[in-house]
Parts: sequence; structure tokens; C-alpha cells
Amino acid sequence: MGNKKGDRRERELLKELDKQGFASMRAPASGSGGKRADGSERELPDIICGNGLKTYAIESKSVGGDYVYIDGGEIQKLTSFAEEFGAIAIIGVRFDYKPWVFYTPEELYRTDAGNYRIKRDEVEEGTEIENL
Amino acid sequence: MGNKKGDRRERELLKELDKQGFASMRAPASGSGGKRADGSERELPDIICGNGLKTYAIESKSVGGDYVYIDGGEIQKLTSFAEEFGAIAIIGVRFDYKPWVFYTPEELYRTDAGNYRIKRDEVEEGTEIENL
Repeated sequence: MGNKKGDRRERELLKELDKQGFASMRAPASGSGGKRADGSERELPDIICGNGLKTYAIESKSVGGDYVYIDGGEIQKLTSFAEEFGAIAIIGVRFDYKPWVFYTPEELYRTDAGNYRIKRDEVEEGTEIENL
Repeated sequence: MGNKKGDRRERELLKELDKQGFASMRAPASGSGGKRADGSERELPDIICGNGLKTYAIESKSVGGDYVYIDGGEIQKLTSFAEEFGAIAIIGVRFDYKPWVFYTPEELYRTDAGNYRIKRDEVEEGTEIENL
């Protein structure tokens, strides 16, 4: 995420995951994850969480406007990590005055350019945290 | 871990886990994990890793001397997190000039005071990274 508001929202998300019985770990600050054995950057999800039944790799987005675009490459990195780890890749989105909702990449609208889009007026289609 | 040498060793461990096919996430710097929903400190393992078959919560120790003592409370926090997450709790130990070896808490010698001890001349009893 990076910005201050996104940071605060992400901490709130961790607490909500606590309440749902998930143990969670947030990724270290960008770049401090270190290089991989092959010299490439270690690409990490924002959060990994598990509850003994399910494990999720979460990319989290805090959005002020009416929609958010997510770069296709970012989702690709998320799904690669999740697949190697053995986790389910999900995107958590928090529009202002709306609850956190979650989507698998397959559930998202994909633009012709290969990016992903989530609209504020479609959040009802997302999975709420109680149903993760 | 905290110290500079421990930090470097932990990065090396991440790379070795890469080579073994694990996707890994290192915990953020102490304290930046944030508070839990109940206001308590978020107690995290040093590393979470998974390979699609097994998930490990790792406490890592880099040791210069001939033995290391690990506080019983630290292991308790590790096992609590691992149980909630759905991971296997292991302690990774790296003595100078020895490879990383791993132990479950049950495999470690426990002192009368409830702490855990690992001796340098017993590392052959640990599990090597190839066998995780």
C-alpha cells in the first residue's frame, strides 16, 4: 500500500482478521524482504493469514474514489506467491464507508489491457470477511 | 533475531528456503506488526513459509557459541501462532560453520526452568533444510 491511510486501513484489516480467528503476518516494508536466491526481488503479498483450515495471500487496496484499477502484473505476482506457498490469492478492497470485501482474481473484471477493475457500487459482489 | 549477523543469516535462510521450493515471508521489524484486536502485542514468528504441502512458522537462531538457550515463553508464542495459523512450529538454528537445522519444540531438551537448549555438538539430531 504505502500511503499513510492505506497503512492505517491495513492495520485495521489485521485486527478484523484477528477477530475472525486468523493468525496474520504483514509483509515487511517494501524492499526489506531481501532478494530471492536467483537475485530477483522477493515479491510478497501484503498479508498472509491462516486459520488452520484456509490460508490466504492478500493484496490489500484502500480506495478513496469510486473505483480502483490493479495492475495485471501485480496480480500475477500475488498468484505466483500464493501458488508456491499453498495459499489462496485474494484481493481485499476497502472503499471509504464500506466494509472490507475480498475477491479472487477470477472474480474481478479484467480490462482489455489486462488490468483488473473493482467498482465501488459492485462491492456487494465481494466476499465479506466473515465468509473467508 | 535483531543483531546484524542474525539478520544476515536470516536472509541467507530465506534464500535456502527459496531453493527448496518454499515461498517465504519474513516478519516485519519488531513492533511494526501492530497490536492485535484485543490490544496485545502481535507475536510473530521470524518467518512463515509454505511449499503447497507444508507450512512452517519458524523461529530462527543464529549462534556463535556452543549452545543456545531459548526462553520457554518465546516457544509458547511460536506454537500459539502456528496452531492458530495452521502451520508447523519449528526452531531453525545456525551454529557457525554448521548448516541450518530445524527442530520441533518437542525435539528439544527442556531445562528444569522450562527453557529450551540446543547444543552445537547435537546438530546432527536436527532436520536439515532438504528434509523439511
